[in-house]
Amino acid sequence: MKKLVAEFIGTFWLVLGGCGSAVLAAAYPELGIGFTGVALAFGLTVVTMAYAIGHVSGCHLNPAVSIGLWVGGRFDKKELLPYIVVQVLGGIAGAGILYIIATGKAGFELGGFAANGYGAHSPGGYSMSAALVTEIVMTFMFLIIILGSTHSKAPKGLAGLAIGLGLTLIHLISIPITNTSVNPARSTSQALFVGDWAIDQLWLFWLSPIVGAILAGLVYKVISPEKE
Amino acid sequence: MKKLVAEFIGTFWLVLGGCGSAVLAAAYPELGIGFTGVALAFGLTVVTMAYAIGHVSGCHLNPAVSIGLWVGGRFDKKELLPYIVVQVLGGIAGAGILYIIATGKAGFELGGFAANGYGAHSPGGYSMSAALVTEIVMTFMFLIIILGSTHSKAPKGLAGLAIGLGLTLIHLISIPITNTSVNPARSTSQALFVGDWAIDQLWLFWLSPIVGAILAGLVYKVISPEKE
Amino acid sequence: MKKLVAEFIGTFWLVLGGCGSAVLAAAYPELGIGFTGVALAFGLTVVTMAYAIGHVSGCHLNPAVSIGLWVGGRFDKKELLPYIVVQVLGGIAGAGILYIIATGKAGFELGGFAANGYGAHSPGGYSMSAALVTEIVMTFMFLIIILGSTHSKAPKGLAGLAIGLGLTLIHLISIPITNTSVNPARSTSQALFVGDWAIDQLWLFWLSPIVGAILAGLVYKVISPEKE
Amino acid sequence: MKKLVAEFIGTFWLVLGGCGSAVLAAAYPELGIGFTGVALAFGLTVVTMAYAIGHVSGCHLNPAVSIGLWVGGRFDKKELLPYIVVQVLGGIAGAGILYIIATGKAGFELGGFAANGYGAHSPGGYSMSAALVTEIVMTFMFLIIILGSTHSKAPKGLAGLAIGLGLTLIHLISIPITNTSVNPARSTSQALFVGDWAIDQLWLFWLSPIVGAILAGLVYKVISPEKE
Repeated sequence: MKKLVAEFIGTFWLVLGGCGSAVLAAAYPELGIGFTGVALAFGLTVVTMAYAIGHVSGCHLNPAVSIGLWVGGRFDKKELLPYIVVQVLGGIAGAGILYIIATGKAGFELGGFAANGYGAHSPGGYSMSAALVTEIVMTFMFLIIILGSTHSKAPKGLAGLAIGLGLTLIHLISIPITNTSVNPARSTSQALFVGDWAIDQLWLFWLSPIVGAILAGLVYKVISPEKE
Repeated sequence: MKKLVAEFIGTFWLVLGGCGSAVLAAAYPELGIGFTGVALAFGLTVVTMAYAIGHVSGCHLNPAVSIGLWVGGRFDKKELLPYIVVQVLGGIAGAGILYIIATGKAGFELGGFAANGYGAHSPGGYSMSAALVTEIVMTFMFLIIILGSTHSKAPKGLAGLAIGLGLTLIHLISIPITNTSVNPARSTSQALFVGDWAIDQLWLFWLSPIVGAILAGLVYKVISPEKE
Repeated sequence: MKKLVAEFIGTFWLVLGGCGSAVLAAAYPELGIGFTGVALAFGLTVVTMAYAIGHVSGCHLNPAVSIGLWVGGRFDKKELLPYIVVQVLGGIAGAGILYIIATGKAGFELGGFAANGYGAHSPGGYSMSAALVTEIVMTFMFLIIILGSTHSKAPKGLAGLAIGLGLTLIHLISIPITNTSVNPARSTSQALFVGDWAIDQLWLFWLSPIVGAILAGLVYKVISPEKE
Repeated sequence: MKKLVAEFIGTFWLVLGGCGSAVLAAAYPELGIGFTGVALAFGLTVVTMAYAIGHVSGCHLNPAVSIGLWVGGRFDKKELLPYIVVQVLGGIAGAGILYIIATGKAGFELGGFAANGYGAHSPGGYSMSAALVTEIVMTFMFLIIILGSTHSKAPKGLAGLAIGLGLTLIHLISIPITNTSVNPARSTSQALFVGDWAIDQLWLFWLSPIVGAILAGLVYKVISPEKE
């Protein structure tokens, strides 16, 4: 139960912090934080939660991460569904608070919120297949980072930093392609508020991250050293 | 006594560094640091002090943090008032030095200094209720990060980094809403120099961070693992 | 064999992440990440891989690093050639995925991709001799950082962070000169897609990093403390 | 002897990396790194050297740091002069390499290089007294960070990160005032190439950092906990 509350709070924070920085601060005139600031914000939600709740729930905050850890033999199958459910709910709660704050400004228009998209809804106008490749490869590498840095032979205590900064890196590369998901809970939380095209395109942001995570769980076994 | 001197110096540094970067460097033509640089500066005041004085005073630098730690059972009630007093005094000293430096430029106008505000005094024009929600939720999460990362089961030595970067993250999200407080000492230090509206609105930047911190102290007990 | 797969994946990630951020996100209108974001991205590919695969292969990801470690007495001569081969192949694979993603946008023009160059192909118009000096000195310092921070007397566990952020620093200085290489595998991966001048100039981005790395391997012996 | 070579290389790197990023990359059109990038670069020279040579020489890289550590009882008086001499020489060597690289671009004009200044030579036009206060207070806090984070009761291994990021923070605040020195070796290295006004104003960038460092050495004794 502690684990599920922790995952709820953590995913709430990932969406409020990451999508919040994008919606509220990225394009502020002159002084806005741009994609670099948004990338940093997403990564720091994970860094902060890794040290705050990592010792409680493992700090997945992402259905694809939970699935990849299960395939990689690090997470118990029977915890998978409850984790995914609270991650999605936490993400929706984060989007809800963000909506309340964002609408506190006169003339606010929801637009695409911080939803993920491809084709006409890709920030830089990238095709569906580019989006598919991007989300699969980025999630694949995200899980390689997670599986590797939490291995018992990796330096102690620094996995949270490596994983969070890994998410920053992923955003530095791929915001122009899909607005960066690698996380179905994050995508769902935004799509529910945007509706319409964001719901129509949501399948890709469940399918690709999960495919990437499963592949990483399998490939990591090839390079994983013996446990101590 | 050592603790109080340390808290004074630390809060001095938080205000001089964080508000100083905002006043002196954020909007410098062409090369200015923008909100991203200010967010980084606020966070690094905490990172640097966490390692410099964390082992002396705990490095609270913030009345809301002291109150949240007390509610969470980590801080002694009888130290609370002295801590808050020196934090406010240290913050004012930091604002004073900043004022001396800033007025060393011909034509300097105080304007809003780096004061916190809502409504007409919100950087992005956000309402009082948006400000209230933002400051409560941001301080709530700040305390969750602090309480979690300093728990005896969290990785050793890295709390200072997680907490400081957490403050960076909070600024990346919320500077446009309230200029980001989450810290009544920081808000008070600026309001005293600005006077007028900044004093009128100061209540919100005491009330909201303290409410958020108390809630976090209570909620954290739900997810806190047994101590080792 | 595990080592070679790890080096392949790591160098794949260095090129996809570093060059990818440059090609896809650096010059995005208004919100683009600029050289600071690209510098951060290159550094974070190394930070993330250092913690993910450092305990597998040592995480060289760079022929010049492997050579410098060999000269410094930290790497076995008979592993040198296989490491360099898979680094180059991994880099090419990273460039290939980047090409697939980048061409998913209508009207994409390859231009210089993220190739390294000097003279007319230096981003800032710097001469061949400036490029030569820059790449030698930057790689020299990169290897000093690597050799020093992985010494048995250096703080445990933090070398990955120091080395990765060292690569960020090197990019902050030298992108305008050569687009920053310090890594023949990274340069080769881009030159193969650009062809033409990028192939003609590729010799400099093998020669200089290797010269810098060898010098560092020799010089480091002067300052290296006795091993514990 | 190892110590002196290490300090030479480290200060060489501080000047080449910090001043180099300012001269070569800060104002690059559209994509330049600005003050945030320069602040990051200065800090990362210290982070990287702290882990690379901290266990050799202590990684001072700065006459004011050596003096402050001596006053604080952490550094032997008889090593003071040799350290300062090699720091200045290393800084000059860094400036020399930077000059060679920078002049590799047609039409390069030295201008102020990355020299420190006040009054008419302050980047933002700040007065001599503002510069004096800034350099004293910034160096004071820099030494508080150094003395505190290297205390035997501070978390192990993280001082290098705290100190380096502290230098980043100092730059985020004070580049507009003096171009940020807090380091007489860094100031001297640039002034020698600029000559003229930079030499005339150099006294302030020896006096203020040393005064700040001495004050910190004295004040730190008040808050320093008993050694373990």
